[in-house]
Amino acid sequence: MSIHSTALSAAFKRFSFHVLKSASLRQFVSQSRAISQRAQQQHIPLSSKTQTVQTLAPSAVSTKANISSSAKTLMSQDQITESLSKMDISPIYTSDKTGSDDKGEGTLDNPFKTPLQAMRHWGKEPFPTIYVDSKEEGEKFSVISQAQMKKITKIYQREASKAESKIKKEAEEAAKRAANLEESKSIVISEDPALPAASASKINGLSQYRGQRVKVYGWVHRLRRQGKNMMFVVLRDGTGYLQCILSDNLCKTYEALLLTTESSVRIFGTLKEVPEGKSAPGGHELDADYWEIVGRSPAGGVDNVLNVESNSDVMYQNRHLWIRGENMSKILKVRHATIKAFRDHYYDRDYVEVTPPTMVQCQVEGGSTLFKFDYFGEEAYLTQSSQLYLETCIPALGNVYCIAQSYRAESSHTRRHLSEFTHIEGELPFITFDQLLEALEDLVCDTAQRIMDSKYGQLVLDLHPEFKVPQRPFKRMDYREAIAYCKEHDIKKEDGTYFEFGDDIPEAPERKMTDMIGEPILLCRFPKAMKAFYMQPDLADPIVTESVDLLLPNVGEIIGGSMRIYDEKELYAGFKREGISPDNYYWYVDQRKYGTTPHGGYGLGLERYLMWLLNSNNVRETCLYPRTADRCKP
Amino acid sequence: MSIHSTALSAAFKRFSFHVLKSASLRQFVSQSRAISQRAQQQHIPLSSKTQTVQTLAPSAVSTKANISSSAKTLMSQDQITESLSKMDISPIYTSDKTGSDDKGEGTLDNPFKTPLQAMRHWGKEPFPTIYVDSKEEGEKFSVISQAQMKKITKIYQREASKAESKIKKEAEEAAKRAANLEESKSIVISEDPALPAASASKINGLSQYRGQRVKVYGWVHRLRRQGKNMMFVVLRDGTGYLQCILSDNLCKTYEALLLTTESSVRIFGTLKEVPEGKSAPGGHELDADYWEIVGRSPAGGVDNVLNVESNSDVMYQNRHLWIRGENMSKILKVRHATIKAFRDHYYDRDYVEVTPPTMVQCQVEGGSTLFKFDYFGEEAYLTQSSQLYLETCIPALGNVYCIAQSYRAESSHTRRHLSEFTHIEGELPFITFDQLLEALEDLVCDTAQRIMDSKYGQLVLDLHPEFKVPQRPFKRMDYREAIAYCKEHDIKKEDGTYFEFGDDIPEAPERKMTDMIGEPILLCRFPKAMKAFYMQPDLADPIVTESVDLLLPNVGEIIGGSMRIYDEKELYAGFKREGISPDNYYWYVDQRKYGTTPHGGYGLGLERYLMWLLNSNNVRETCLYPRTADRCKP
Repeated sequence: MSIHSTALSAAFKRFSFHVLKSASLRQFVSQSRAISQRAQQQHIPLSSKTQTVQTLAPSAVSTKANISSSAKTLMSQDQITESLSKMDISPIYTSDKTGSDDKGEGTLDNPFKTPLQAMRHWGKEPFPTIYVDSKEEGEKFSVISQAQMKKITKIYQREASKAESKIKKEAEEAAKRAANLEESKSIVISEDPALPAASASKINGLSQYRGQRVKVYGWVHRLRRQGKNMMFVVLRDGTGYLQCILSDNLCKTYEALLLTTESSVRIFGTLKEVPEGKSAPGGHELDADYWEIVGRSPAGGVDNVLNVESNSDVMYQNRHLWIRGENMSKILKVRHATIKAFRDHYYDRDYVEVTPPTMVQCQVEGGSTLFKFDYFGEEAYLTQSSQLYLETCIPALGNVYCIAQSYRAESSHTRRHLSEFTHIEGELPFITFDQLLEALEDLVCDTAQRIMDSKYGQLVLDLHPEFKVPQRPFKRMDYREAIAYCKEHDIKKEDGTYFEFGDDIPEAPERKMTDMIGEPILLCRFPKAMKAFYMQPDLADPIVTESVDLLLPNVGEIIGGSMRIYDEKELYAGFKREGISPDNYYWYVDQRKYGTTPHGGYGLGLERYLMWLLNSNNVRETCLYPRTADRCKP
Repeated sequence: MSIHSTALSAAFKRFSFHVLKSASLRQFVSQSRAISQRAQQQHIPLSSKTQTVQTLAPSAVSTKANISSSAKTLMSQDQITESLSKMDISPIYTSDKTGSDDKGEGTLDNPFKTPLQAMRHWGKEPFPTIYVDSKEEGEKFSVISQAQMKKITKIYQREASKAESKIKKEAEEAAKRAANLEESKSIVISEDPALPAASASKINGLSQYRGQRVKVYGWVHRLRRQGKNMMFVVLRDGTGYLQCILSDNLCKTYEALLLTTESSVRIFGTLKEVPEGKSAPGGHELDADYWEIVGRSPAGGVDNVLNVESNSDVMYQNRHLWIRGENMSKILKVRHATIKAFRDHYYDRDYVEVTPPTMVQCQVEGGSTLFKFDYFGEEAYLTQSSQLYLETCIPALGNVYCIAQSYRAESSHTRRHLSEFTHIEGELPFITFDQLLEALEDLVCDTAQRIMDSKYGQLVLDLHPEFKVPQRPFKRMDYREAIAYCKEHDIKKEDGTYFEFGDDIPEAPERKMTDMIGEPILLCRFPKAMKAFYMQPDLADPIVTESVDLLLPNVGEIIGGSMRIYDEKELYAGFKREGISPDNYYWYVDQRKYGTTPHGGYGLGLERYLMWLLNSNNVRETCLYPRTADRCKP
């Protein structure tokens, strides 16, 4: 950028430190940047990127010197065209028929649409020769007419003058701010020792201090200045939000002028009920009498990193800042409430919580999605499911559950897969398949009811106003019926044929069916060949298993469950079918040797449950720091 | 074992399927096994293992044929010695001075202590030549005297005859049992349709059914037969224990005779209050009127695998069976209650639970204990601590905590290290170091109080009758004072010198000091150079950090905590000191950029807390399936 010597370049430099406020101004600045880049390109060694430019500007004359000298003289367009042509400045091509102001480059091959864009592109008078569509047959371009040039130059000048005055105004304001800032250093505030002592409190504990003096720590969540003498700060401390009013000298100090969102502060003042007709979080606001900065934040706060234009990759790259936003912190709080609801459900129903190991030497869901690692010289894996371990606990503890991380090396990018997810798993001895289905209904409905009845229920409604706890019993549908349903409702495979018994119904058609039916579905009795080695065959129809997926509208499958094989020989047959060596499963087999029993269980994906609860579009949103094939940080 | 043709070998074979009841009988059988092995060794090709044998028995005559033929004839000891010597049977050496009955092998180099052991070793008459210490000077061994041989042979015969009659009795009993078993097949029981319908219940829900007919599923925890007509079963279903009385035909069926502990059954009957003066779990017992077997268990139940003689490796190899025992299931239930107590503590104090990722690309506790794995082509690690992630949550959620697995590739075997453990971590914004210390006291005392107040408090007292919730405040001691304490109380380093400022105090001396002081200690302000990159220096004494370890009697450290560096530059200096590249920590640094704040937190090892609570000797006991350097299964 060493050649930025024009006024526009200087303006650009100044601007780059300010938020660009209007689209036209942004465009203007981006154009001035484009000019500099173009000029620079004409100096730098040729590369494939600059090949087009090179074709049009074969000489290596110093454009910078020419432009600055030419800028000092007033010349007619003819003189300009002539002198530019002498200087070997490339002309700019425009074509109303084939050009584009957006994507064009002003070259013969890729012209702009309008001459105005050509002028903007060049950025300042005098302009090089501008070509437009020729009216002569056989000729593609001709030089723009003088009349048109004159007319469009006027439009350009108006546009440029507006931007210039805006820049000037900004400069004046900046100078004023700098003066104010300098002056502000002399304004020092201090806590008035005559005031009553302030009680320290978190925001959600403030109600008891109405009318009293308090001190509150937090981050500046929102900030609004009103004239010189008033500043409104919405303070956030994780437990809630508090509106604070800083007036007079409190908003004139150096730190007050520099204050930005996400700074951390401590504010002292009197907690006052908000006047009738007005509203504020908690129904009160803090009339500040003193405040201190704790930690500053860069100008613009988080908005410089995360804003409406940030793409998803930037958002997840900066998830540590994103979670400070209102929606994301609500989701995380509902997640907290949801985990608690699950635990309370289990506690009330006498399940014992256990902590199975996550470093294992066995697989549950197939070898292709195992994360492998070296365990003191042996091959080990990150667990895919704690199910097998839960099964071993039922003779010791009865009904058991765990809430633990499970891992799947899923390289596919879908909206409902993570490589690490929170797996809520339960295992129940001495039950029937029907009792398992009832346990699932109870789990989903009771936990949802608990969340809605808690203080977090309102957050769910904030994020998903239509949410309702579903009715029991859920629709029960056999896999065979689902195959028939798809045929009847013209839901087809990717190859255009209908699903047949034995076909796996993938996510998309499953979602289609679930959304058509529009209520929770307990999809039961999948074919043996489709399912894991441990699933109990249905004795009445041994080609299928006593297995179930719970499908919910908007999400699809959130639970997979089954009765487990309890006959030792049958289990060995399962190992054989799936090509698994039973050696590492001796303890799982023992379960069938020492007092086996019919039993069943399930695994629920917490992130998917939250997708359903909060009407979210992606599991990545409902966990703290999502792990996907392309991301393992933050 | 192809040469097992003697009566004793046959007896051994029968025996190996039964529990060995007396020490002498066990010894006897092990001797008969040793003989067979010895005889076999004399046939097999020479190897380094059998070299001693080879030296003593250079010929390859078939010992088996010789022994069985010689056994058919009655001969005098002289004749025997002579004929054995002709057969090249090796003599047996004994030495009262240098031999050992335990470790000796009867060889010249490694003699037994007593001639009786020599006879036991050979296992049956006639015996080979037995040598004893020689009384002649210059001669080491001489052949045993006839008088001594006669006397000891009598002792041997009495011993052998006792064992033989025991074996005979056992054989008769076995035959009787087989006959009974055959007869039992004709006895069929069924539920009497005239009886009122039985209510299904778990054991812990039975109280409401006193005097009524119930049906209960469970595992046979204990089993006692009283005569032919009565059988007592203690049933276990994970929720509790129930004494059941099976009488008359109920204990005469084929399944009743085969019934062993750990079989799963369903028992129907009337629930009766136990008579005054008698006790049973729950205060009632089930007078059974019908029962069914659900799943059998091998003869002897779990006792064949796990018994008082099993070593620790066998115990952990079979931990899936071990946890069915009373003590282990109590520990797991207290663990369940403890996790709940922690969560309730945090909920009451307005902490938000979060779920940090466990697959990470950063380290917290030093690179040497990282488990590494391939994450879609990038190097990733299993988390050592969720602390850094928790810190990023405080501006969004305020006080936060997590209960998650942490991993340490610790190859050392100590009683308080696991490669995977349950890590309870909290992080608090806007606090001082003193407030952090108070939070730790509150955490430990409040959770312990909650456990003791819950229905699981009694289980704690069952396992640790002296347990008392500790008093607050805890003793506070600076690291500097600990160094002085060690000097004053003569606690030294391994090299015999005293600890100096800057030395790490390892587990053993730390335990010594903690046990001497005999109460919880908050050990504070460790030197900066000893601690992790993120620890906040003490501004009053910057050579030390605002760090703390909570030490408890019997365990040592259960919590490590500190205030965290909140100045960005200071943090970079910490990275530099520890040689860590900050690139993967940009999000952690951002925490200091966007509204930094003094904050602190800690990590508590749940398994160590349980060691303290239950007076357990090893962290492996207080988790479900421990992971140590030598074990990754079950």
